[in-house]
Amino acid sequence: MNNPALNDLISEISSLKTDDMLTKDFLLSWEQSDDEIAAVLKTAEALRLLRNENISPKIFDSGLAVSIFRDNSTRTRFSYTSAANLLGLTVQDLDEKKSQIAHGETVRETSCMISFLTEAIGIRDDMYIGEGHSYMKEIANALDEDFSEGLLPSRPAMVNLQCDLDHPTQIMADTLHLINHFGGVENLKGKKLVMSWAYSPSYGKPLSVPQGAIGLFSRFGMDVTLAHPPGYNLIPETEKIAEDFCSASGAEFSRTESMSDAFENADIVYPKSWAPYSVMQERTELLKNSDDAGLLELEKHCLAQNSAYTDWECTEELMKKTKNSSALYMHCLPADITGVSCEKGEVEASVFDRYRSITYREASYKPYIIAAMILLAKQKNPSSVLQQFINSGRWRTI
Amino acid sequence: MNNPALNDLISEISSLKTDDMLTKDFLLSWEQSDDEIAAVLKTAEALRLLRNENISPKIFDSGLAVSIFRDNSTRTRFSYTSAANLLGLTVQDLDEKKSQIAHGETVRETSCMISFLTEAIGIRDDMYIGEGHSYMKEIANALDEDFSEGLLPSRPAMVNLQCDLDHPTQIMADTLHLINHFGGVENLKGKKLVMSWAYSPSYGKPLSVPQGAIGLFSRFGMDVTLAHPPGYNLIPETEKIAEDFCSASGAEFSRTESMSDAFENADIVYPKSWAPYSVMQERTELLKNSDDAGLLELEKHCLAQNSAYTDWECTEELMKKTKNSSALYMHCLPADITGVSCEKGEVEASVFDRYRSITYREASYKPYIIAAMILLAKQKNPSSVLQQFINSGRWRTI
Amino acid sequence: MNNPALNDLISEISSLKTDDMLTKDFLLSWEQSDDEIAAVLKTAEALRLLRNENISPKIFDSGLAVSIFRDNSTRTRFSYTSAANLLGLTVQDLDEKKSQIAHGETVRETSCMISFLTEAIGIRDDMYIGEGHSYMKEIANALDEDFSEGLLPSRPAMVNLQCDLDHPTQIMADTLHLINHFGGVENLKGKKLVMSWAYSPSYGKPLSVPQGAIGLFSRFGMDVTLAHPPGYNLIPETEKIAEDFCSASGAEFSRTESMSDAFENADIVYPKSWAPYSVMQERTELLKNSDDAGLLELEKHCLAQNSAYTDWECTEELMKKTKNSSALYMHCLPADITGVSCEKGEVEASVFDRYRSITYREASYKPYIIAAMILLAKQKNPSSVLQQFINSGRWRTI
Repeated sequence: MNNPALNDLISEISSLKTDDMLTKDFLLSWEQSDDEIAAVLKTAEALRLLRNENISPKIFDSGLAVSIFRDNSTRTRFSYTSAANLLGLTVQDLDEKKSQIAHGETVRETSCMISFLTEAIGIRDDMYIGEGHSYMKEIANALDEDFSEGLLPSRPAMVNLQCDLDHPTQIMADTLHLINHFGGVENLKGKKLVMSWAYSPSYGKPLSVPQGAIGLFSRFGMDVTLAHPPGYNLIPETEKIAEDFCSASGAEFSRTESMSDAFENADIVYPKSWAPYSVMQERTELLKNSDDAGLLELEKHCLAQNSAYTDWECTEELMKKTKNSSALYMHCLPADITGVSCEKGEVEASVFDRYRSITYREASYKPYIIAAMILLAKQKNPSSVLQQFINSGRWRTI
Repeated sequence: MNNPALNDLISEISSLKTDDMLTKDFLLSWEQSDDEIAAVLKTAEALRLLRNENISPKIFDSGLAVSIFRDNSTRTRFSYTSAANLLGLTVQDLDEKKSQIAHGETVRETSCMISFLTEAIGIRDDMYIGEGHSYMKEIANALDEDFSEGLLPSRPAMVNLQCDLDHPTQIMADTLHLINHFGGVENLKGKKLVMSWAYSPSYGKPLSVPQGAIGLFSRFGMDVTLAHPPGYNLIPETEKIAEDFCSASGAEFSRTESMSDAFENADIVYPKSWAPYSVMQERTELLKNSDDAGLLELEKHCLAQNSAYTDWECTEELMKKTKNSSALYMHCLPADITGVSCEKGEVEASVFDRYRSITYREASYKPYIIAAMILLAKQKNPSSVLQQFINSGRWRTI
Repeated sequence: MNNPALNDLISEISSLKTDDMLTKDFLLSWEQSDDEIAAVLKTAEALRLLRNENISPKIFDSGLAVSIFRDNSTRTRFSYTSAANLLGLTVQDLDEKKSQIAHGETVRETSCMISFLTEAIGIRDDMYIGEGHSYMKEIANALDEDFSEGLLPSRPAMVNLQCDLDHPTQIMADTLHLINHFGGVENLKGKKLVMSWAYSPSYGKPLSVPQGAIGLFSRFGMDVTLAHPPGYNLIPETEKIAEDFCSASGAEFSRTESMSDAFENADIVYPKSWAPYSVMQERTELLKNSDDAGLLELEKHCLAQNSAYTDWECTEELMKKTKNSSALYMHCLPADITGVSCEKGEVEASVFDRYRSITYREASYKPYIIAAMILLAKQKNPSSVLQQFINSGRWRTI
């Protein structure tokens, strides 16, 4: 096998500083250095090329990858299972309803009990503002303690499968998609990317996608525009992060309350619904108190509020305003498609149809991103490990 | 290792035309050529012999086998998991209740999202007349599209784990059982096989087993008799298929409304309950409309209709009418056994007891049939792959 | 690799008589010979050391490990999955709610249907007095029959993941913990071990832990004290077993109705709640009859009875009575910790905190115990298999 692209990636990875990734969890993209971000992107791409070359990248002969899904999930679940399986791990789901956790086990205890032969723990917890990330940190700290006391033979890699602040496996996959679509990370420089709110007939969609998006896309020299109706703010800290990254990379971060203005001359558009931060805070309180009447009331209020902005739809007309009328449309899926999945939604059917395949390709990177995150958290010399795969010639399928 | 039976099978497989199996799904047995049917049967038997020789037939080093069960299942689930595991795949269940599919994802989108690192998709969908097979075709087409657009690195093999028309993994396993029981496929020629309705206190049992049975057993030169009370017809097209296969193989296809006449001189009897086609059509409409009252009414009506035929039971007396009083009794399990699992059922307890072990053996072929279907859908040269297993000497257990 | 401790273990295992373990299930520890008990403990420790040396102990290239959990479980589920995975097996859960078992399948039939490519079956069934063990025996007998009739290519190893009589994977893990904690099995001789009832605000906790504990700890020359309030007896036969083992090993078995007396000069204390045998019998009847009113009544009565013994708490004061005020505290987890998981419970928070890590270590042995049980049930020459792992040098992680 001689794959120049693969050889280049391996050589590039070897020049990155990745040592800290062995002890630092990849929970929020903005806590990672540029080298660490690059290492995940390049390792993911290398794993993808290896699979295309029918080479197995198993780094484990056995071991569990625990999954904890506090929300329903299809795509993320399959991505996580695929990534674990690719590396040689077996997924064991911690179904909190079937477990004894409710019956008096602490987070510390549970973390330890599920980790004796575990190499990775993937968690999705995006329901409550102020909770998902804290829960992950709590588990991470417990694992550190357990490992340092010799209770665990290895420290499992934490994978943030979506929290209240960030959705790093999604946005890293989106980024790899952008890099491949535009033919290299260097080509992202100067592009105009729009993260825009869009109308949806449902409410309460998490903030992690737009927050993660502006928090990461702002690091590659792209001008990032955040567009939403009045009141649909994100958590202020995350907007600040994006602003700082943009200015550090010499790009512009701008806000607008007009979808139409935002789309003007855009290279990339990411129109997606989310709930206002203040609503999510209120909702969190109501959910905690199991206040069903309050939740119903909030939903009614929010849907009414949303309905003032049904024109925040990614239409053909809006797309015409973008650069050469052909901006790249992105979505984390599933999208609310007008006339298809709902009466009125985030995107016009003909627009989505034109970009359908390309959004599927966008999604296809996620398993490799997750696998890369695990590999980098467990291997000191990722480039030599990748080279080892090539040398061993172990096939993935006969 | 020198296993002449295994060597013979490998050599026979090499002479069969199996190329089309790489792109044609095995959804309905009657859409498969004789060579393709033979290839599955012989490959399944070869995999069974390999296991007995403690040789591993892993063709995958990693990869997912997705399962979608729209009905409860024990045996089929375990058969599918066993087959996947034997070949090196890991099962990931798509639990439609835990997934986001209900929330606006199309079949096309779901098919793609679960398939990025997937090698097989097994589906059981037998509840609604006119739906199971269509659903599988829809997914198959989506996978073709995704693969041709380069969104999927490989086209997953589809496995029909039971639809509204056919139950090919069951009936292929039944066929391999018949071949081994009678000492060769050539010995099936001229045998009289009876697919007979039998009384059950439940109603609404799928038609796929009797339809699949007459649609496949009719291809081996056996005289096939379909017996049922007036009104308990199968889907007419499937009866026509069986009739045509019989006449093509110079055998007879006959119908009778007397279980006793049917058993006369039979070599093989397969007495099993099913619902009349017309009832299944009506039931499908009611289920679609969630018409609980209508369903209850239909159930009452059908049970009353069934109760006119409680004498359609496979008794010792009836068995005495068969060839030498010792026809082979078959069942896909679980059977409704009179006095055991119900007051009055499909089969007399002493008959079932005598054939209990042999029905378990009948069931034991299913994992190998499924594994063979996957292997043939993914490997261009099945015989050389099987030879490779032998040469590599990779053990299955230490 | 040169690990003297590992070499010693392998040599010790080779001198034990383990042949009968191939056909005799490890369902109740007291039915196992001393050599068999020793073989499990030493093999488990060897597997643990192998993992620390990064050597893979896969004895299977494929195969299923079926799990049947009739009660919720976190720790045991993860231990079982980890053990299966370590040896090369994939867990397939038999979810009785999702299966067709309720619909007329016999235990014999189910056992066979799930076992065609299965190497181990782990069962947790501790809800009903007089049932869990019988159910396991019934399955074991069915598997024997299926195997002897050639329906199964191998006889799956049964793993008792907790029944109404014993909890052998727990207590064997506890024992290995004791051995390592005190620096060798020979150091257990003469130690005073107290299995004590403790107060809990819940009721109906299974008897299998205390019964299993006295039934096994009594075999190592330890003086075993069973302490509980009046009426909180265990199944009499199991107390008799412990008594006999103690006297056979020249140690003392004693009973007391004072927790304080029991703790006097103790080396090891295991304070844990359980329901009186008579209550469990009554509860079993009520559960069988789905007598919800009766169950509520019984619960009320029992909680009232329990509440007379809230002073049966493992306090700092009580711990001061133990040998050098520093007995080893044990628990199978999760513990009812006063002021943490409940208002008033089995153990004072400061005591539990001091021993928290050590109870986690206690739990960490369970996956290896389960793996050892499976290995010994499937391999005639465990010591040579272990040596083979070392010689092959197959890494567990790259």
